Amino acid sequence: MSSNIGNKIKVQLFGQSHSKGLGVVIDGLPAGEEINMERVIEFLRRRMGGKNSYSTGRAESDTPNVLSGIVNNKTCGAPLCAVFENTDTKSSDYEELKNIPRPSHSDYTAYIKHSAHNDINGGGHFSGRLTLPLCFAGAVCLQLLERRGVAIDAHIYSIAGVFDEPFEGQTVNLDFPTVSRDAGEKMVNAVKAAAEAGDSVGGVIECGIFGFPAGFGDPIFDNIESRLSYALFAIPAVKGVDFGAGFEAAKMKGSSYNDPFYIDNGKVKTKTNNSGGVLGGISNGMPIIFKTAFKPTPSISQPQQSVNLVTGENVTLNIKGRHDPCIVPRAVPCVIAAAAIVMYDIIL
Amino acid sequence: MSSNIGNKIKVQLFGQSHSKGLGVVIDGLPAGEEINMERVIEFLRRRMGGKNSYSTGRAESDTPNVLSGIVNNKTCGAPLCAVFENTDTKSSDYEELKNIPRPSHSDYTAYIKHSAHNDINGGGHFSGRLTLPLCFAGAVCLQLLERRGVAIDAHIYSIAGVFDEPFEGQTVNLDFPTVSRDAGEKMVNAVKAAAEAGDSVGGVIECGIFGFPAGFGDPIFDNIESRLSYALFAIPAVKGVDFGAGFEAAKMKGSSYNDPFYIDNGKVKTKTNNSGGVLGGISNGMPIIFKTAFKPTPSISQPQQSVNLVTGENVTLNIKGRHDPCIVPRAVPCVIAAAAIVMYDIIL
Amino acid sequence: MSSNIGNKIKVQLFGQSHSKGLGVVIDGLPAGEEINMERVIEFLRRRMGGKNSYSTGRAESDTPNVLSGIVNNKTCGAPLCAVFENTDTKSSDYEELKNIPRPSHSDYTAYIKHSAHNDINGGGHFSGRLTLPLCFAGAVCLQLLERRGVAIDAHIYSIAGVFDEPFEGQTVNLDFPTVSRDAGEKMVNAVKAAAEAGDSVGGVIECGIFGFPAGFGDPIFDNIESRLSYALFAIPAVKGVDFGAGFEAAKMKGSSYNDPFYIDNGKVKTKTNNSGGVLGGISNGMPIIFKTAFKPTPSISQPQQSVNLVTGENVTLNIKGRHDPCIVPRAVPCVIAAAAIVMYDIIL
Amino acid sequence: MSSNIGNKIKVQLFGQSHSKGLGVVIDGLPAGEEINMERVIEFLRRRMGGKNSYSTGRAESDTPNVLSGIVNNKTCGAPLCAVFENTDTKSSDYEELKNIPRPSHSDYTAYIKHSAHNDINGGGHFSGRLTLPLCFAGAVCLQLLERRGVAIDAHIYSIAGVFDEPFEGQTVNLDFPTVSRDAGEKMVNAVKAAAEAGDSVGGVIECGIFGFPAGFGDPIFDNIESRLSYALFAIPAVKGVDFGAGFEAAKMKGSSYNDPFYIDNGKVKTKTNNSGGVLGGISNGMPIIFKTAFKPTPSISQPQQSVNLVTGENVTLNIKGRHDPCIVPRAVPCVIAAAAIVMYDIIL
Repeated sequence: MSSNIGNKIKVQLFGQSHSKGLGVVIDGLPAGEEINMERVIEFLRRRMGGKNSYSTGRAESDTPNVLSGIVNNKTCGAPLCAVFENTDTKSSDYEELKNIPRPSHSDYTAYIKHSAHNDINGGGHFSGRLTLPLCFAGAVCLQLLERRGVAIDAHIYSIAGVFDEPFEGQTVNLDFPTVSRDAGEKMVNAVKAAAEAGDSVGGVIECGIFGFPAGFGDPIFDNIESRLSYALFAIPAVKGVDFGAGFEAAKMKGSSYNDPFYIDNGKVKTKTNNSGGVLGGISNGMPIIFKTAFKPTPSISQPQQSVNLVTGENVTLNIKGRHDPCIVPRAVPCVIAAAAIVMYDIIL
Repeated sequence: MSSNIGNKIKVQLFGQSHSKGLGVVIDGLPAGEEINMERVIEFLRRRMGGKNSYSTGRAESDTPNVLSGIVNNKTCGAPLCAVFENTDTKSSDYEELKNIPRPSHSDYTAYIKHSAHNDINGGGHFSGRLTLPLCFAGAVCLQLLERRGVAIDAHIYSIAGVFDEPFEGQTVNLDFPTVSRDAGEKMVNAVKAAAEAGDSVGGVIECGIFGFPAGFGDPIFDNIESRLSYALFAIPAVKGVDFGAGFEAAKMKGSSYNDPFYIDNGKVKTKTNNSGGVLGGISNGMPIIFKTAFKPTPSISQPQQSVNLVTGENVTLNIKGRHDPCIVPRAVPCVIAAAAIVMYDIIL
Repeated sequence: MSSNIGNKIKVQLFGQSHSKGLGVVIDGLPAGEEINMERVIEFLRRRMGGKNSYSTGRAESDTPNVLSGIVNNKTCGAPLCAVFENTDTKSSDYEELKNIPRPSHSDYTAYIKHSAHNDINGGGHFSGRLTLPLCFAGAVCLQLLERRGVAIDAHIYSIAGVFDEPFEGQTVNLDFPTVSRDAGEKMVNAVKAAAEAGDSVGGVIECGIFGFPAGFGDPIFDNIESRLSYALFAIPAVKGVDFGAGFEAAKMKGSSYNDPFYIDNGKVKTKTNNSGGVLGGISNGMPIIFKTAFKPTPSISQPQQSVNLVTGENVTLNIKGRHDPCIVPRAVPCVIAAAAIVMYDIIL
Repeated sequence: MSSNIGNKIKVQLFGQSHSKGLGVVIDGLPAGEEINMERVIEFLRRRMGGKNSYSTGRAESDTPNVLSGIVNNKTCGAPLCAVFENTDTKSSDYEELKNIPRPSHSDYTAYIKHSAHNDINGGGHFSGRLTLPLCFAGAVCLQLLERRGVAIDAHIYSIAGVFDEPFEGQTVNLDFPTVSRDAGEKMVNAVKAAAEAGDSVGGVIECGIFGFPAGFGDPIFDNIESRLSYALFAIPAVKGVDFGAGFEAAKMKGSSYNDPFYIDNGKVKTKTNNSGGVLGGISNGMPIIFKTAFKPTPSISQPQQSVNLVTGENVTLNIKGRHDPCIVPRAVPCVIAAAAIVMYDIIL
């Protein structure tokens, strides 16, 4: 299945970038859980565009219309369905892309899979806009996790080779969340410089899950790392995921990598957290830490080499339309949302 | 579920390191597919220990006993079950570990999850030995993929900071597969040096899937990257997965990252392959390339800090028993096997 | 999961009887399939109420609002979402039922499962109104099956002990589909008589799947009978399902039950069809025939014994509101829809 | 998937009638549950053949070889795998059936699905012998249910038109379980008479699940009736399943069908149990009662009409080999086992 996830809850996304609406169904939520819709909408605002120099001009209201599953602000045990309208769509931008795929975009593979029936407008079902209902589901799960003492937050670990300071769960702002205000400014400048050059940049988001109890997850396939990475790679532009020391671990020796156990006030902890809170696929009670690598936005305004799929000729492509020079800031809530859905499904 | 994977086929692993037997059931294989069991056993030999300075002394026959699903060397449409005996087990090694978890091992989290009922011997169900039936299933899928023109191979990308040369699908040997004989020797020396110091080292495996046709996979959750990473993180000691340029992509600009399309003899190809063969979650016909980061073997013979879970005291732990100073060489077939299972399930 | 079904396609229902909206997401439909929405709406009309003496007064427009998945009347490969508004709701009818469960209704078990958070209005998520999006999904699958040469239809086999004549795929009308006009009239009279007595009646629907090719389905669990019965018992009020001779088969001898094979114009057929088109869980090319037993509508206007769940007292309950004295006629499209979803999922 | 079942636990069957072995993997069992293997074997004895006039001569030891998942008689949290050897096989009996399908057997449909690669010997994966590992899994789940206060038993409701007395959970013996000794004798005589005529008979098994708490199960698709019927139709020869009054309900009026609620010592009960313990798909605390209809054994020794699939000619078939004239007595533990697996999965 392409667009649903979850074992105990089932999260089903639907919609295309320019379809009448898009949304999500969350099946399996227990009855009686209060959902604060104000806070859900606040969370959705974190991925909203149209705000500044590093994101697109598309401005949707992004207000969820909850059709079912909630009565008097509480879940009633029936599937929760939330729908968003698509209003600010300019499909004409995409007419000429029909036969000329944008490099490193989904246009070509969607064409091969669905042939001419693919909805190319705005990227169709492959669009980053599908992260809106993903974030809705994540925002709901975040509240349910919070009620169990679990918090999830993330910072921009790096953009265009500029690195943030170590993350302990706090950032200086929500729109462009870094630990260091200084590093954040350098990143913004790198994004602006790329935008001015008609180019784009990538980056890395580091996410932490705090307060998650030890003993959840499974060995072999349904381990926490498998399940989180499965969800994270569903976010457009993600090309890498690692946990704790991650790829750096490959260069380390066991004697420095291994996290020594010790007793802290009767509780088992580890002195370091190179394992990123997961051992044998199961949470060990330390923060679950992972990094997600994003490629540069594939839509750039510089001319690029492509092909005409109908005539079979090599062509030069100039992409019009609105595009973020760097999607990393808007991707932060998406990473949190994907993690929230998975971790709630595991702890439920 | 902890130990099964697959949508169209279902691969169910079972067994513990020191149980009477371990094995795998593969349900959903089409009838009439010839399985060359000699070649399956040859593939299993690639993950076998007991051969040299960089792997453990445990020597099992590792010969599969096929109980069902194959008649006259061909699948008959019924689930294929293969069983391996556990013969060379020394459970006494693990007696004293029962209450003192090894750092960065699954001992502690398995204890929290299953309490005293967990089978600690040899790591139980969390043991690397479970990659034997995984490799069996992978070896079967490799043959079925090969019949469809798909080949999968891998090389050791790096060990202990020593890097191999670029991989085009060929390596100099199967036991310690590198592109460069020279790099391989340096890696072996690094492993030996660590072993002599009672230490261990990690590394990275790069895998390539060649000949996989364009148009397979799905957008959002069941995309190729999600599905491969889900399977890869099930291999013990994996802490990171990335595709194509992967984490390096995060430092690149769109203008250099994007893979330009061109027509080659009527076929659409890309000049570079920073995307690693996957766009929008779907194969684009280029080789599917990914890297998997392995942490250093957690079992080292140096003394380590741990805790006694019963008495609640900090203790110093000295691990006995047989352990690879570097599991990367033996992990190569595991990576190939995990990829083969997923890719066959996708193409079936 | 409670409200989704399917292996290759995923059909996810959502909504409550009196929620803002209800609907369905169908994920996994191949791109390029034309969907005639006029015919879908025609099919939905078969389950609509408010038409005559044997169904309720609730009259909804029941027009689907397709939010996604269809572009220019063709599937585009993205999940299809259709939403229906709930307009004609009278929630006040249900206030006093909150603590006094209606006999043989879901009120009591929903209360135990979801406690006071259950949405009792109109039966909430347990309402027969949820068969509306089920029928939508079924109507879509019917068109896709038809394109593959498969037709599904059903007749009222019996109501209140009045039996129809043998079914060959044809009925005299769509609103009250029987083979014999005479039997139909007798059934209508039985329903009217029950209604006048403030009572209700049950019945049996027999469904036939014609043109379904041999060789589909699986042995053991994913056999056609398991999958169809799983879907059919999801329709409210269904209490029995059997295939071919069904329960009658239990009284027969093998010599009269067994369906002899013969060659008819080079095609293998059976002279009788006591097996109902399924052998070993797999279609044999003969019509797939099954019966579904419906209990009488539990809502009757006669006084009934119940309990007050809050005070713990025995009470006498008088049910108000609109209720069909017999839901069998409106259930006919639901049976067809459930079968269509399953059979399309199997043949896809 | 054909041969696995379960949401929280996964039960995977494997094996063919004449393969080297057959068995089952049960994944997801919690650690620390004691399994009394003596009692498991006792339960398996209930489905064993070779004991009397109404069952086949095949006598296997049917002793499970538990390869994994149990340490010191307790589950350890790893998948439990049990294997049975096939020893008493006479494959030569099946040579001539390869191209001539037995009427109302799976031979024809298995041939269409798997072509000549199907393992015809003893019915292959379609054989009733696969109910042996099913019964093993059921016997394990029965013990786990018993620990939660749930008991499951069944009686022969009817054979060849001879009916037993009402079932309250007790039967006179385990090999041929009826409430009435007298009815049991009449049934045995009917079976013997059919056997002497080279014929076979069918029957109905009624099963009761006692002590199952209210509030389990789900509305719509994962309701208790859907899940039980899904499992029951996996037993070879089952052609119908109904709950409570079942097909009889279709003839009743609401006023007599509806189960009135009353308070009994502070507990909510119903005076009748026409609903069979399930309302809205969820358990209501009353015994869960269902009937399963079995067709007559398709293998009879009278000559039958069939076809030669290779030559395309009509032929007369005489079946040799060992076959039960009535499989109902041996199917009783299978029905109990299927129910136990489902109910344990629901309550876990």
